[in-house]
Amino acid sequence: MKKISARARDMQASPIRKLIPYAVAARKKGINVFPLNIGQPDIPTPAPIREAIRNFDQEVLAYSPSQGEDFLVESFSGYYQKNRIDLAPEDIIVTTGGSEAIFFAFLTICDPGDEVIVFEPFYTNYNGMAFETGVTLKAITTYAEDGFQLPSVETIEKAITPKTRAILICNPNNPTGTVYSKKTLEDLAYIAKKHEIYIIADEVYREFTYDGLVHTSILQVEGMSQLAILIDSISKRYSACGARIGVVASKNKAVMEACMKFAQARLSSPTVEQWGARAGMMMDPDYFEPILEEYQRRRDAVMAGLAKAEGVVCKTPTGAFYVIAKLPIKNADKFAQWLLTDFNHNGDSVLVAPAAGFYATPGMGLDEIRISYVLEVHKLEKAMEALAEAINQYRKIEEAEDSAPKAQEANA
Amino acid sequence: MKKISARARDMQASPIRKLIPYAVAARKKGINVFPLNIGQPDIPTPAPIREAIRNFDQEVLAYSPSQGEDFLVESFSGYYQKNRIDLAPEDIIVTTGGSEAIFFAFLTICDPGDEVIVFEPFYTNYNGMAFETGVTLKAITTYAEDGFQLPSVETIEKAITPKTRAILICNPNNPTGTVYSKKTLEDLAYIAKKHEIYIIADEVYREFTYDGLVHTSILQVEGMSQLAILIDSISKRYSACGARIGVVASKNKAVMEACMKFAQARLSSPTVEQWGARAGMMMDPDYFEPILEEYQRRRDAVMAGLAKAEGVVCKTPTGAFYVIAKLPIKNADKFAQWLLTDFNHNGDSVLVAPAAGFYATPGMGLDEIRISYVLEVHKLEKAMEALAEAINQYRKIEEAEDSAPKAQEANA
Repeated sequence: MKKISARARDMQASPIRKLIPYAVAARKKGINVFPLNIGQPDIPTPAPIREAIRNFDQEVLAYSPSQGEDFLVESFSGYYQKNRIDLAPEDIIVTTGGSEAIFFAFLTICDPGDEVIVFEPFYTNYNGMAFETGVTLKAITTYAEDGFQLPSVETIEKAITPKTRAILICNPNNPTGTVYSKKTLEDLAYIAKKHEIYIIADEVYREFTYDGLVHTSILQVEGMSQLAILIDSISKRYSACGARIGVVASKNKAVMEACMKFAQARLSSPTVEQWGARAGMMMDPDYFEPILEEYQRRRDAVMAGLAKAEGVVCKTPTGAFYVIAKLPIKNADKFAQWLLTDFNHNGDSVLVAPAAGFYATPGMGLDEIRISYVLEVHKLEKAMEALAEAINQYRKIEEAEDSAPKAQEANA
Repeated sequence: MKKISARARDMQASPIRKLIPYAVAARKKGINVFPLNIGQPDIPTPAPIREAIRNFDQEVLAYSPSQGEDFLVESFSGYYQKNRIDLAPEDIIVTTGGSEAIFFAFLTICDPGDEVIVFEPFYTNYNGMAFETGVTLKAITTYAEDGFQLPSVETIEKAITPKTRAILICNPNNPTGTVYSKKTLEDLAYIAKKHEIYIIADEVYREFTYDGLVHTSILQVEGMSQLAILIDSISKRYSACGARIGVVASKNKAVMEACMKFAQARLSSPTVEQWGARAGMMMDPDYFEPILEEYQRRRDAVMAGLAKAEGVVCKTPTGAFYVIAKLPIKNADKFAQWLLTDFNHNGDSVLVAPAAGFYATPGMGLDEIRISYVLEVHKLEKAMEALAEAINQYRKIEEAEDSAPKAQEANA
């Protein structure tokens, strides 16, 4: 008897979480392991959101409408208008996190075997959602040396086949921290219109841009209203990952009608958090100013730390709260494990995400790691000091192994 | 350009909700429309659950673990032990409602094109989840005349093909209110073992049995530990549909490991409600006594009302809070619409769910409706009085139409 399906067997387990047992063991040995591996912000969830949840006073915790509570859909619409993004309440469906928004988008525009172009390294959960919906992700590689900017229009067009239904971007980008310029988005719009494919734009990090950079939404690009599908979430924006409140939105009526059928099949998103989310969407945008300053300081602390290691390739990213660093080592998987099993610097070590898990192309990203900067600056500084020291040490270990393979075998 | 996918086009829209615009219009005309169409209980969500939600005091509303919070998984395990169902914490994954539990179960044991046997009429959302995962539901019909009990072992075995991976049951049943006996479950277990297929048992109405009937879980049937997958939810049990907290559970390690990969892909279920759900699972089972008495009174009110209409076939159901009634009319779809557009009894009318939407076989259930009894008894009595009167009236209208087709055409 076949116990599980082929797709369950082949489904990727979370690549970010596999190092956790080693981190637990290191902590048991008394090592202070700084978590640089996760996308869970440490910034407190804003008080208005927490208060709205605490003030939920309905006697029956009932289903909300499948589209989301009217008041929340309207709050989202108001938030988008403030951000010069034209989305009416009827263009918006509340989803159970951004994950479900991607799931609905894939189901709505792709049949099994259809293709969606992504730029690697990319957010690993796109893999999971593509896998569950039978969508083939076609990955175009971007490079640390270019700050992970998108390749030329010609390069992207070469990846388009008759089965291509969309290009999926994450802007600002997880895992690279790259923010795409208006010109880049216009290039993508040109391709979308020419080839009649959608742009699915995951803009959950919209507010998180640094150095004065202004974010451009795909819906602000001319002629894209019928070809753009927006993925959004309050998770990162309001440090509310556990609320599981996201959005799928489009001006394309056929797309939204189809999404609505999938929304009905899962009945509704959690009700109490919709009250919390409304409180968030109605907050003054000033809320972000000190938070962005804090994140920019953190990014700078990460970059300063990386500069202390020799041979790291990493252009300063301008958005989200991630950095992909290309290291002067061969195997970041082993390095990340070694950090937890064999290394400490004054009792400190770090948990990082090896970047190979963010690539679809086998063999890519083996010398890269993703660093999340969701720790306070003074902790990040200590973490990066340990990481820089570790890079310098591990590089020498790899070199020694390379130059003395026989000695090693003799010892084995 | 193909705007949406073939599967989005073919996905069924919610059959329960399509009458709502007519109900809205009837209410605008001043008619008191009793909702007998939904599964949203009116019983207040227990105070401990609402208090636990209000007392949520974490500064960061963070992701919960993909498996669910440890405390909740342990609370569920404790609840199952109290119900003589042997499930350890590691056998349990918290899901975003029972809907997601079904989704994970289908993904885990079925590849696209694989078959799951269901008994029609069945809960329509099974269709949605099957459709999204490419699973073919093979429906075996059950009948009002038999109280919608399952057919013989031989009849069920005839539906098994090499592609059959499971039999899916809902016990107590939505939409029929039928509770399966221990003997019926043993018959299913016999089939499962003989053909090496799973039983997926949706037991979200576990507590809702009447007339002193004791519910048997599939996990209480001998030899089923490796072949049973349990679907559960707090939605109905604690009138907490909006919490979106369910469970998928199995003693089969391979199944749970696979489910965990799908759980990781959507990150986590909502965090705040997990605190609420724990408070529910820890409540004394005495909580249910007055509630069951109330639901039993409601069921009796529904049955008394149906007895006032001539020619209705409906055996008294013993569980959940639904009744499927076979009416002496030809087209329950038109009847349900007529109830809202052309009928009232002392200013009252009712919103019911035509049952054809609960059948997979075309043409089945056309003369049936589902009645939910989630209204207080005095309201239900008025609602059923109106419904009985409507059945008697509509029957005559259909008869008149049948006997005078030419006169009608002449009038047109």
